Amino acid sequence: MTTLRIAGGRVLHPDFSVREGDVLVDDESGEILAVGDVADGDATLDAHGCLVMPGLVNAHCHAAMTLLRGYADDKPLESWLREDVWPVEAELTDTDIRAGTELALVELVKAGTTAFADMYFSMPEVAEAVAESGLRARLGHGVVGVGKDEEAARADHEESLDFAREYDGYADGRVRTIYTPHSLTTVDESLLREYVPKAREAGVPLHYHANETRDEVDPIVEERDERPLEYADDLGMVEEDDFVAHGVHSDAREVELLAERGTAVVHCPASNMKLASGAAPIPSYREAGVTVALGTDGAASNNDLDLFDEMRDAAMLGKHAAGDASAVPAEAVVEMATAGGADALGLDAGRIEAGRRADLAVVDFEAAHLTPTHDAVSNLAYATRGSDVRHTICDGEVVMCDREVLTLDEDAVRERAAEHAADLVARAE
Amino acid sequence: MTTLRIAGGRVLHPDFSVREGDVLVDDESGEILAVGDVADGDATLDAHGCLVMPGLVNAHCHAAMTLLRGYADDKPLESWLREDVWPVEAELTDTDIRAGTELALVELVKAGTTAFADMYFSMPEVAEAVAESGLRARLGHGVVGVGKDEEAARADHEESLDFAREYDGYADGRVRTIYTPHSLTTVDESLLREYVPKAREAGVPLHYHANETRDEVDPIVEERDERPLEYADDLGMVEEDDFVAHGVHSDAREVELLAERGTAVVHCPASNMKLASGAAPIPSYREAGVTVALGTDGAASNNDLDLFDEMRDAAMLGKHAAGDASAVPAEAVVEMATAGGADALGLDAGRIEAGRRADLAVVDFEAAHLTPTHDAVSNLAYATRGSDVRHTICDGEVVMCDREVLTLDEDAVRERAAEHAADLVARAE
Ligand SMILES: [Zn+2]
Ligand SMILES: [Zn+2]
Repeated sequence: MTTLRIAGGRVLHPDFSVREGDVLVDDESGEILAVGDVADGDATLDAHGCLVMPGLVNAHCHAAMTLLRGYADDKPLESWLREDVWPVEAELTDTDIRAGTELALVELVKAGTTAFADMYFSMPEVAEAVAESGLRARLGHGVVGVGKDEEAARADHEESLDFAREYDGYADGRVRTIYTPHSLTTVDESLLREYVPKAREAGVPLHYHANETRDEVDPIVEERDERPLEYADDLGMVEEDDFVAHGVHSDAREVELLAERGTAVVHCPASNMKLASGAAPIPSYREAGVTVALGTDGAASNNDLDLFDEMRDAAMLGKHAAGDASAVPAEAVVEMATAGGADALGLDAGRIEAGRRADLAVVDFEAAHLTPTHDAVSNLAYATRGSDVRHTICDGEVVMCDREVLTLDEDAVRERAAEHAADLVARAE
Repeated sequence: MTTLRIAGGRVLHPDFSVREGDVLVDDESGEILAVGDVADGDATLDAHGCLVMPGLVNAHCHAAMTLLRGYADDKPLESWLREDVWPVEAELTDTDIRAGTELALVELVKAGTTAFADMYFSMPEVAEAVAESGLRARLGHGVVGVGKDEEAARADHEESLDFAREYDGYADGRVRTIYTPHSLTTVDESLLREYVPKAREAGVPLHYHANETRDEVDPIVEERDERPLEYADDLGMVEEDDFVAHGVHSDAREVELLAERGTAVVHCPASNMKLASGAAPIPSYREAGVTVALGTDGAASNNDLDLFDEMRDAAMLGKHAAGDASAVPAEAVVEMATAGGADALGLDAGRIEAGRRADLAVVDFEAAHLTPTHDAVSNLAYATRGSDVRHTICDGEVVMCDREVLTLDEDAVRERAAEHAADLVARAE
């Protein structure tokens, strides 16, 4: 056992109190050993002037879409998907996805994110990139039925299940898997009835888009005379380890259903604003006891993977939508980005206490825009940017030290991604 | 004449095209001499891998409120002001305001902002801090009548006018002034009728809060049976060089009035969301031809002074409020933060072309979160943060080089501000 002492900073505790103290982690077991007044470690990581917080959790992402950052903005969701995103995605190769995912991983590490959920394609490539990066992830092959004959659609479900079975526990357990039908309107009912039980048998949780836009809600309500999440529940898709993305248009019954089942919601405020999808009822979810996490969604609808932006957006949109400046306060968004995310993804992380996974972000508070510190939690929610993160630690290993990424070659990753992005767009046009 | 060549980057042109090229500036006249294929300069500033853009303009701020960053969040406007902000502001001294303003100036410089409008107290201190910083500003002593007898209220107006007359053109012309009654509901009508003509006589433009909240609109409409900006127009407060802050609740007649008069609006999306004030009708303003600028408002309701956040917030809130993902596109928010701000403040800046003031920000695009660059304007609007600014140039002088502020001692300013903030809050409690 070798231990690392993160020394000289202040620590954000699970009750949101902030006190001077060190954090001792074991880099073999990947656990937090002690917090506060701790013993010397075999090595020391300086945290003077810094706040030590749980590593951030990005609970809904399509990592490789970094290749499409800024490719097409300011368009309605439907035409954006049909005219811009899908034609390019049709051209994606394994090596494109590897390059785009590595770019996302560098961006995540540099902004203090230690775990994320990803739903995309070429997932073995994604899993290998995650292994290399030192981060933690819940990965799923996204199943889309639209435009496919039954055989191809069935093969897609099989691929998702095969990946989920094969890669669960990969990279010393840092990779866990999910079964990820894209959404309730883009995947055929009969195949869901067939494959959801198989996912349950394999012990793989579900993650899918739900209630993102009105256009997705209305056809289900009209056709079935029930709400989308009630339909999902009929299909056995609303269980305790599952988590759904967006949940913008959930009504009171659906909020209650999620609370009863213990299914988490991933709030993606930037994507919802940028695509004009609406504002999720975050105060209702939280009052009902639903676990709420935060997600950036893909970089094409955000346009970055910075969870600090997402916290600020969640607080701002929450107040605006409620018409109440006290709605969705600073503590709520910090909780959503840390403990909420960890709970949604089923990770024993998101809180700094002995025995938890040592997934941490060390934020440098010695900056003009973080001065003074009347309230460190307020500074995290409203004024911190990803670039203020000084060190990132995942599973007890330092993956970024003094802004240098130790697990991936940042410059090489950036160059490779830029080349793949240019080439991809050229092929699609 | 000594010249500086900003070399090796790409340049954002006034038509939003982005092309490789250099910018030559004269550090004595403070002008841009040439753009594109330019002659050698006496000195060179490296811009390889960077985008050279107009310096950002923060058109509505209360700079010294950085001292209250995070002091009280997540409260409704009215109780926030009465219980938290005003009791502390009552304790503010000249040296507090100097310390808080210098902190704001460091924050502005570090995020590429080259000009700002400030409405606060102890304005000679603010003017001296601006002179020292190398930035450009429109400064006004904020006049508040509430809680004052007529003599004290009159003295406040006199102080605002005296400051405006005395300091206009200070610091080699980098300081211009404004007459700044706080708002239409916090300043007495009879004194506005007396002092607005005096401001006109002195050639000083007006800047004030208007239509920020419903609570500010309703009493005027009930009492006077006219809209707030119609009332302002009766008072002679809606003229060509004037600019109003917020304009959230303006109706169609008021939008038309501002367009006719040539009065600009400063949109403050972060403050409006955080205080749940509403969403300004930005598409209506722009369609009517009203000049729209961006402002952060004070750091207590934001909580930072980063115009890149403000651009992103303006685009996001604009789309959300319109229910249309194509509303308030990337070009619009970049224009609002540059040319729009310069026009609102009456500066010959905000566009990179020969003859304009050399107020520039050089943004480092060699970062994971700005890769790839399918569209540089999209990257500016949606993915760039203030910390990506590498150099800041104002009036032809380099005020930040490679993230080092050259005009103010960043560490000393931060420490002084933290001490003043702690001491101020202790006095008020
Ligand atoms: Zn998504
Ligand atoms: Zn203001």
